[in-house]
Amino acid sequence: MSLVQSFKWRYATKKYDTSKKIDSGVLADLTETVRLAPSSFGLQPYKFLFIKDKAKLEEISRAANGQPQITTGAHVFVVAVETNVDEKTVADYIDKAATARQTERKNLEPREQFVNGMLGKMDYDQRIVWAENQASIAVGVFVAAAAEAGIDASPIGGFDKSAVNEILSLKEKNLTSALLFVIGHRSPEDDYARIPKIRKPKEELFQTI
Amino acid sequence: MSLVQSFKWRYATKKYDTSKKIDSGVLADLTETVRLAPSSFGLQPYKFLFIKDKAKLEEISRAANGQPQITTGAHVFVVAVETNVDEKTVADYIDKAATARQTERKNLEPREQFVNGMLGKMDYDQRIVWAENQASIAVGVFVAAAAEAGIDASPIGGFDKSAVNEILSLKEKNLTSALLFVIGHRSPEDDYARIPKIRKPKEELFQTI
Repeated sequence: MSLVQSFKWRYATKKYDTSKKIDSGVLADLTETVRLAPSSFGLQPYKFLFIKDKAKLEEISRAANGQPQITTGAHVFVVAVETNVDEKTVADYIDKAATARQTERKNLEPREQFVNGMLGKMDYDQRIVWAENQASIAVGVFVAAAAEAGIDASPIGGFDKSAVNEILSLKEKNLTSALLFVIGHRSPEDDYARIPKIRKPKEELFQTI
Repeated sequence: MSLVQSFKWRYATKKYDTSKKIDSGVLADLTETVRLAPSSFGLQPYKFLFIKDKAKLEEISRAANGQPQITTGAHVFVVAVETNVDEKTVADYIDKAATARQTERKNLEPREQFVNGMLGKMDYDQRIVWAENQASIAVGVFVAAAAEAGIDASPIGGFDKSAVNEILSLKEKNLTSALLFVIGHRSPEDDYARIPKIRKPKEELFQTI
């Protein structure tokens, strides 16, 4: 199935089949694809928190108005962004880059200064917005990777972010929640699978200038 | 090639081969995949502006510090978000949904009220941020679709948004630029293709709770 066919097949799954698991090899491919997703300056200022603690899942479900994806999906992730991206983050990245590229650190210092300059133009709130945009690109990649593998997925923006931050003590971890992301296999009872997709016509979404 | 292999192959292309075009059928598949990308409430509050006007491309290139992707890529898109998402946007969506689902409009009015309630909680700036996040998910899908098709792609966040808004008169169109997105085929001279990717280790990006 080509990716366009996979996107016709997929839908924002509401109810998952709780008896169906995801093969560990398939899950490893999905997470590896997301790990390779591009991000601004390569900094990947986000984390995918893989929630396995049942009590926390129940609490997160309540913070998302009991949406059934969270309690029926095979795996639930809280996508959180880093709130402390700073010169140390950039320095660590440059260290890793120098090692990977087998070059002296000083050769990458102009890049380090450039990235610090760009980040320096953003205040705290703007950095969060920037980080959320990077996380959203990774979520788009996750949606595509799941669809290609025949795995259902639901990105969820409608939840109480402050409550989820509290439940997972994210503030202490220098994180703040941005999205929930659920994967699994659709329940045959999920009527949403049979509802036609509503999308903008191509000529409205893509306009030539 | 599976998607994970495609993501190992892809990189943020800097310089494209100007002699290589993209097959129109492949391009149609890419845009159709992006059209099917999920978005919050299904509203797709963004547009992909397909810039074919050479003079405008030159101006956009200058607004992006002359980054070579813009003048060497086969196709350049300005990803812009809608600045006027309101109750009329939601009403239009509900109209289309009622037709597609062959149901009476009144059956969808609880949904309409819910979406209006959620949007009503956001001020102007928050709606732009929300829309940018949706556009970023679509860009992630575009990156994946291009990679799967063996097409190189560069999402570009580093450009002067105000300048691009001016160049394309986006304010008058109730739009504001969020990202640039270039596709094409890498130039054999692009040294960036040979630089190892720097990514967080899996256990840092995916943390189990």
